[in-house]
Amino acid sequence: MDFELKILGSSSATPTFERHHTAQVLTVGNQINLIDCGEGTQMQLMRYKVKHQRICNIFISHLHGDHYFGLAGLLSTMHLQQRTSSLNLFGPKGLAEILTLQFKYGGTQLPYRINFVEVDTSVCKKIFEDKYLTVHTLPMQHRVPCCGYLFKEKPKPRHLLKGKLPSFLTPPQLVRLKWGEDIRNEQGEILVRNQDVTSDPKHSRSYAYCADTKYKEDILPYVKGVDLLYHESTFLSDMEHRATHTFHSTAAQAATLAQKAQVKRLLIGHFSARYKDLHPLLEEAQAIFPNTNLAVEGKTVSILE
Amino acid sequence: MDFELKILGSSSATPTFERHHTAQVLTVGNQINLIDCGEGTQMQLMRYKVKHQRICNIFISHLHGDHYFGLAGLLSTMHLQQRTSSLNLFGPKGLAEILTLQFKYGGTQLPYRINFVEVDTSVCKKIFEDKYLTVHTLPMQHRVPCCGYLFKEKPKPRHLLKGKLPSFLTPPQLVRLKWGEDIRNEQGEILVRNQDVTSDPKHSRSYAYCADTKYKEDILPYVKGVDLLYHESTFLSDMEHRATHTFHSTAAQAATLAQKAQVKRLLIGHFSARYKDLHPLLEEAQAIFPNTNLAVEGKTVSILE
Repeated sequence: MDFELKILGSSSATPTFERHHTAQVLTVGNQINLIDCGEGTQMQLMRYKVKHQRICNIFISHLHGDHYFGLAGLLSTMHLQQRTSSLNLFGPKGLAEILTLQFKYGGTQLPYRINFVEVDTSVCKKIFEDKYLTVHTLPMQHRVPCCGYLFKEKPKPRHLLKGKLPSFLTPPQLVRLKWGEDIRNEQGEILVRNQDVTSDPKHSRSYAYCADTKYKEDILPYVKGVDLLYHESTFLSDMEHRATHTFHSTAAQAATLAQKAQVKRLLIGHFSARYKDLHPLLEEAQAIFPNTNLAVEGKTVSILE
Repeated sequence: MDFELKILGSSSATPTFERHHTAQVLTVGNQINLIDCGEGTQMQLMRYKVKHQRICNIFISHLHGDHYFGLAGLLSTMHLQQRTSSLNLFGPKGLAEILTLQFKYGGTQLPYRINFVEVDTSVCKKIFEDKYLTVHTLPMQHRVPCCGYLFKEKPKPRHLLKGKLPSFLTPPQLVRLKWGEDIRNEQGEILVRNQDVTSDPKHSRSYAYCADTKYKEDILPYVKGVDLLYHESTFLSDMEHRATHTFHSTAAQAATLAQKAQVKRLLIGHFSARYKDLHPLLEEAQAIFPNTNLAVEGKTVSILE
């Protein structure tokens, strides 16, 4: 099953000619999740051939325009293109009020349902769950209420070792083995020991999206060991003072967090328009956490099982 | 003095990869007027090298997203880039309320003043005037309150024919001659006949922007004889029924209006995404009004004096 992230925008608040406002697409199997939706996201979706009608969930981190000013336009285009399937929209207080007002004055009545979930940006809390995935909020520290999102695949079934399975096992017993149980008789004695007939399940993959934030170690327990951490890196370290003042992070801070959280891979983005060349940001991060990449628009990061 | 129009967006509600949502820039001398501001306008301004800090006036036709969803982002970028000079913003009821709500949740306090003028979209009324220009609303007929805008240069002074001016004329008398008066003595007798010593002033140029609308002849008196008429042409005539149903116009209707209003030049735009090739729209309009052009993004139409 696919578990891959596509970057649609990598710029901080002022866009540049090459870099757009924040938006990312996380594909998990057939499910497309849109994470933030800066101005122009619908055009970026078109550019990178992501079908917006397949988006099931939209997660908005906070109400600075560079993270959501493309949302009303995208929802309108879904409407014009006859979307009928419902959509889950997660975001902080105020988002529904703004959209409602825009649609009121636009005389827009959407032909599909939006299930709006107002998230509490101050806690790590499960806000979504389906067969494959859970999503938790990650509290950020920014100038307005802001959260990241943690996407985790659910635990997967163990592999049955076909050559080692006794033939008397029934289908329900096989399912129980897949989920880690031993098979016992009515007296409670073990007939088939799980570890003898199964091997470990495929890895459950995880992606943590850390939106605009000051350096903040208290999220470490939540993002510990994730396969992929995206962390904003608006500035280089020589502007750490400005980063702190504006509630943003430096590339070194992002890398330090990645290192402390022992994540597998770090992606940095949300670059200030002042950086034409992004390599100094990459080098600064890699000096601390070598497995770092730049968020590059149109590029996909696949996480293998 | 320049009087030129630059097209930033030529698409109707669903953008295409090549065509963006509506926005136009009318430059009159040093003054830049932005007309509508669809999503992505700030990027289009960048692409076509229009400095947004020089925009003095913004005119929004109506509150369908394809005409204003780029506005909050543009105003935010002006803020981030330290704009301090005030800005006039003209638009229908609801626009200020939406922006105020967006800025409230974004924690945004603009460092420059926006003079918001709520326009009555149902009448032709002067809403702006400075030394060079007047701007009037043009009532459109759309699904929500909508107006176009008529930009007219003010009358210009007559040319003094230097070789023919008597030497006794004082500076105030010369000014009076420039504005068409004869010079008389105290008895009211003509000393210098204006027509003997002056020639006609330069032409006062005009541009009429007709935003989303059904075909609507009652604007003919207002746009009569303008140098340049922009009229939306969402559809070809074979979709006239759909045009009427959605309160839009066909290319033939735009051309008919141009012909009846005896304008000098017609520009058609706001093309439906269904038309990959725009030439059939152009041909349909030119069959009725030959001096028609397509609104092409990045192209400039200069109107000479």
